[in-house]
Amino acid sequence: MTEIKLFCPATIANLSCGFDVLGLCLDNAGDEMIVRKVDQKGVRITKIIGADLPLETEKNVAGVAALAMLATLEVDCGFEIEIYKHIKAGSGIGSSAASAAGAVFGINELLGKPYSRKDLVQFAMQGEKLASGNAHADNVAPALLGGFTLVRSYHPLDIIRIDSPEELFATVVHPQIELKTSDARSVLKQTVSLKSAIMQWGNVGGLIAGLYTKDYDLIGRSLHDEIVEPLRSVLIPGFDLIKQTALENGALGSGISGSGPSIFALSRGKNTADQIAKAMSDVYEKMNLPYEIHVSKINPDGVRII
Amino acid sequence: MTEIKLFCPATIANLSCGFDVLGLCLDNAGDEMIVRKVDQKGVRITKIIGADLPLETEKNVAGVAALAMLATLEVDCGFEIEIYKHIKAGSGIGSSAASAAGAVFGINELLGKPYSRKDLVQFAMQGEKLASGNAHADNVAPALLGGFTLVRSYHPLDIIRIDSPEELFATVVHPQIELKTSDARSVLKQTVSLKSAIMQWGNVGGLIAGLYTKDYDLIGRSLHDEIVEPLRSVLIPGFDLIKQTALENGALGSGISGSGPSIFALSRGKNTADQIAKAMSDVYEKMNLPYEIHVSKINPDGVRII
Repeated sequence: MTEIKLFCPATIANLSCGFDVLGLCLDNAGDEMIVRKVDQKGVRITKIIGADLPLETEKNVAGVAALAMLATLEVDCGFEIEIYKHIKAGSGIGSSAASAAGAVFGINELLGKPYSRKDLVQFAMQGEKLASGNAHADNVAPALLGGFTLVRSYHPLDIIRIDSPEELFATVVHPQIELKTSDARSVLKQTVSLKSAIMQWGNVGGLIAGLYTKDYDLIGRSLHDEIVEPLRSVLIPGFDLIKQTALENGALGSGISGSGPSIFALSRGKNTADQIAKAMSDVYEKMNLPYEIHVSKINPDGVRII
Repeated sequence: MTEIKLFCPATIANLSCGFDVLGLCLDNAGDEMIVRKVDQKGVRITKIIGADLPLETEKNVAGVAALAMLATLEVDCGFEIEIYKHIKAGSGIGSSAASAAGAVFGINELLGKPYSRKDLVQFAMQGEKLASGNAHADNVAPALLGGFTLVRSYHPLDIIRIDSPEELFATVVHPQIELKTSDARSVLKQTVSLKSAIMQWGNVGGLIAGLYTKDYDLIGRSLHDEIVEPLRSVLIPGFDLIKQTALENGALGSGISGSGPSIFALSRGKNTADQIAKAMSDVYEKMNLPYEIHVSKINPDGVRII
């Protein structure tokens, strides 16, 4: 095998109460990528379709992730990467993570899998570092592992993968505004009240318990963010109305995807997820705000060969 | 049935990262209680052996919990309660919770179980309110439900019971000093850094995941308290040495039980728990500090008829 074509999934990080630790993998929103093994050593990004992103390996998240991985291996070949972007940069559903995860997954396959999917997270994180200045794992982990992921710790890196209940669906709406990550960060406060923090970790515990016991109601009750959402949601047009609409249409919970501006809702069953998508669309139609919308089951596998 | 004899278990609350939300139930440390149905209406505490506690119903945690429960029912009888205390007040392993849980459980049994165990938590909490000024559930929930309990939310009350992995054992050492709850509270800070809070809820998620997957190593890695232990442990003589000793002797993790002064360690298997008990004892022997020590599996049932 010298060439591999991949689906590189979009992901939702900062899942309500799980700010900075909990993410999930989407199934039908994502990029495609071709990774090719070639004689010439090194990594070259040979094509990017659908986005205005740098082709220089050291300036491209896929390139940087691939280089971080190859620096740990002795290989006598090189790799070419073609990227077909469908996830918009800055959408809040893990555009850079999809590329970083795809690159390391593809190279790993072509090299006969020297690494496990979990091992690959650390390399993909280097792509995130290029993209946002912060080597975070909360998008690349679900993109590589599928399902839900908990980043328990960074030092040492400790990632726990959790199966999704099978009937869980996500609806994600992306209002077409630019929300800079730096702006989304600047509204955060560096301290929180102990009382809010306790409520937050109670909900994180409840969400994890709900995932393991497939208790959809408990998942819904736990999808509450005491700390970040109240600060960040003001940056997202129509957030309160979109969230309220999602809940009124049967969502288990709703919140900001990543650092926004996308808004997600989780629900039980595709019909409810579709109904939520329709209702969310109506809100942005009335506001005359362009948007994209995705309805997806939770992707159990992460990045995959197509 | 007009009389019932109960074992009212000790409990560990504030389980490391799970400050204010996570507790567990001990199996062989606890009080005994006799609850008797009598013609004369009302609740009377007729005997307390082993502790200098008030017999007046309204001043006794068991009495107050019983009254809170009976206020919701129409009954044409009354109850007498005899309490045989083995858990010392102020030890940090749920002395008041054991009495409150026992009283409401016993009365519920004698009335033909109008309430579920989970229903009873709200009444037992009223006993805690008398004892500490705060109607907290993190000891009465595990005392009534057994296993591990997560208090996800107080408004509304939402308690999740989690089975313990079968080989999990607790070692609890109680240095015989008085540590006032008010002092243990006064050292807490009302704000925490966002960074520490994120680490804490990552660990809460890891601990819950470890319990569901019976992953002892993950449980151990997650038993880490970023926020409260560093502040409170200075009030407990020998804390750092006891904890270090527990870890060196195979504990998965160790921390403050409740608001102290008891210190717990969790381990896999009774042999390790016994070895930790021996090593902890040696520490306090050398310090010439009186102590009590318990080794217990996790009690799967909570308060029980004996």
